Amino acid sequence: MNPQALQIPTPSIVLDAPTVRRNLKRLADYAKSHNIKLRPHTKTHKSALMGKMQMDLGATGLTVAKVGEAKVMAEVSSDIFMAYPAVDPLRCAELAKLAGRVTMRVGIDSSTAADALASAARAAGTTIGLLVDLDVGMHRTGLQTPAEALALAQYVSNLKGARLDGIMFYPGSIKDESAESIKQLQGVDAKLAETIALWAKSGLKAGIVSGGSSPTAYISHHVKSATEARPGTYIFYDMNGVYGGYAKLEDCAARIHCTVVSNAVPGQFVIDAGTKTLTSDKNGPNPDSGHGYILEYPKARIAKLTEEHGQVDSTRCDALPKIGDRVTVIPNHICPCVNLQNQVWWKEEGQSPRPMDVDARGRVF
Amino acid sequence: MNPQALQIPTPSIVLDAPTVRRNLKRLADYAKSHNIKLRPHTKTHKSALMGKMQMDLGATGLTVAKVGEAKVMAEVSSDIFMAYPAVDPLRCAELAKLAGRVTMRVGIDSSTAADALASAARAAGTTIGLLVDLDVGMHRTGLQTPAEALALAQYVSNLKGARLDGIMFYPGSIKDESAESIKQLQGVDAKLAETIALWAKSGLKAGIVSGGSSPTAYISHHVKSATEARPGTYIFYDMNGVYGGYAKLEDCAARIHCTVVSNAVPGQFVIDAGTKTLTSDKNGPNPDSGHGYILEYPKARIAKLTEEHGQVDSTRCDALPKIGDRVTVIPNHICPCVNLQNQVWWKEEGQSPRPMDVDARGRVF
Repeated sequence: MNPQALQIPTPSIVLDAPTVRRNLKRLADYAKSHNIKLRPHTKTHKSALMGKMQMDLGATGLTVAKVGEAKVMAEVSSDIFMAYPAVDPLRCAELAKLAGRVTMRVGIDSSTAADALASAARAAGTTIGLLVDLDVGMHRTGLQTPAEALALAQYVSNLKGARLDGIMFYPGSIKDESAESIKQLQGVDAKLAETIALWAKSGLKAGIVSGGSSPTAYISHHVKSATEARPGTYIFYDMNGVYGGYAKLEDCAARIHCTVVSNAVPGQFVIDAGTKTLTSDKNGPNPDSGHGYILEYPKARIAKLTEEHGQVDSTRCDALPKIGDRVTVIPNHICPCVNLQNQVWWKEEGQSPRPMDVDARGRVF
Repeated sequence: MNPQALQIPTPSIVLDAPTVRRNLKRLADYAKSHNIKLRPHTKTHKSALMGKMQMDLGATGLTVAKVGEAKVMAEVSSDIFMAYPAVDPLRCAELAKLAGRVTMRVGIDSSTAADALASAARAAGTTIGLLVDLDVGMHRTGLQTPAEALALAQYVSNLKGARLDGIMFYPGSIKDESAESIKQLQGVDAKLAETIALWAKSGLKAGIVSGGSSPTAYISHHVKSATEARPGTYIFYDMNGVYGGYAKLEDCAARIHCTVVSNAVPGQFVIDAGTKTLTSDKNGPNPDSGHGYILEYPKARIAKLTEEHGQVDSTRCDALPKIGDRVTVIPNHICPCVNLQNQVWWKEEGQSPRPMDVDARGRVF
């Protein structure tokens, strides 16, 4: 093991800088070659520095889920999209203020949200761009039909303080890059095209059509109606990506350094990463795979987590770690893991890891 | 709804002060009446102020899981137990330093851990008290037999820098206060008694026998060999407690204020609390109950979480919230939820809620 790692307390997330850069560059190149704008979702890294890296590679702007994240990312991008319906007066007031400094857009699916945002913008003397959220299969948020989307677009187009900027969608129900997934994306595209055409008939323009995810990032060009993509996890990837077939182990840039703290119970060893480090998120494509992948012990299975303990089934292991050894874990889902840390570690080749703040974590709203 | 609540951004955890005090007082009274010392686990609140409340009610000391938590709690208690095996040199060095200011004890289950801690203590010119961890059924950490526990106790008793202070156990496999659970606790007691007797034969004294949990808090007196109990969750309780039968809804002091942000998809509404607020922890006693309980909509089920969205199945609801309404959620497991917040809100009756730092969160090790 690299003795430099001993300088890092465990459990810590270490980001491999060359891998991060390779992941960012690869998608930036893909997007450029397909004439798709990229608006990466910063919920994965919650770091202004990494948001800046994405902007420097040509991103058209950044995506956030929270007002607190928007404030941080506004330091490195003048074009912020909150892919989350703001309706709370506190949220709307902060966004309206921010709209005085940067281009601020919000995705909404109700006239209540449109009213709340427009009213806050009028009070602040600013304008907020609104994208109408269209459900394309995730069934989480989003209007159900092109007709409903048109009705909200018409409503927004008459609201002072708001500016109708286009359509938002999230193909989160499509989990990989398979032929079946491409077919589903083409279905998404058809629904978008129908909506855009309906708007056009009413004299309304969807200037921005914003969608996308990491699992479908490299098949985004099948959604021909979209103008921009909003993947998040692609900066780091995780075991969801590996078992989902859209990432390789070597693409996983975020690795959690852990210490083996016990082996008193036969058939297992215990690492100092429990749910307060790895979260309880199961692996989507492979729910029985355990709570992450231990690079040094590929046959081990992180079988059970409590808050600060990870119980690793070692019965299939060829060799066993000693107490005090360090191991590195790729988690199932990296986004909520980063969100648990105040700091992560940035590791350039041949250099000691440097601490890096997770600036935008812990924002309430 | 209380208009004061509108001052709080969502999603936020609001602590009902009278309920917190009642929970603390009730267990303090029980412990006193049974001559059990209380050493509450601070992993639930991670707050120095609440640790102080526990000390003011007569706690003998405080329990922590991490070095960073120990540092914070050492501000309000001079007697800290880390119920977690420290083996990492960084961890041990910090604990050894802390042992110069407060009585510092650590639970261990290996000679490696004993060596690491004793060596750090010698380097710092301090002494760390060690409790030998005995597995009583959780099968997470802990030596398996009284004989193994004796061997480690003998090892520790000869180590300079370490002081053999007793035995630690965690009855985490016992989930409620039922007759069956009492029987299991009596089995735990028998194993402890056997170990203590074995130590005594070798001239070793288990001055402290530390165990306990919130589910078994009020049946702790059945473990006659124990000298102290270490419950954590009892300060707030949660839906694990309610469905586990050891707490009532009105005992749940921590409630998550959320905003309804969407109802575009038929049969559901969406709240602004996803896994980054409620965590993915399922309910232990009632795994199909969803991701928490909405007080205002008892027939609703928080069916699905993504990072910032909670999708609530409302098909059984008698009435429905409007977009922008606030609802209050009792989570399945409060401990990791508090750990996600930088601040919680403290609510005294008739007063506006006051922000309160979660001082000890985000500590890496």
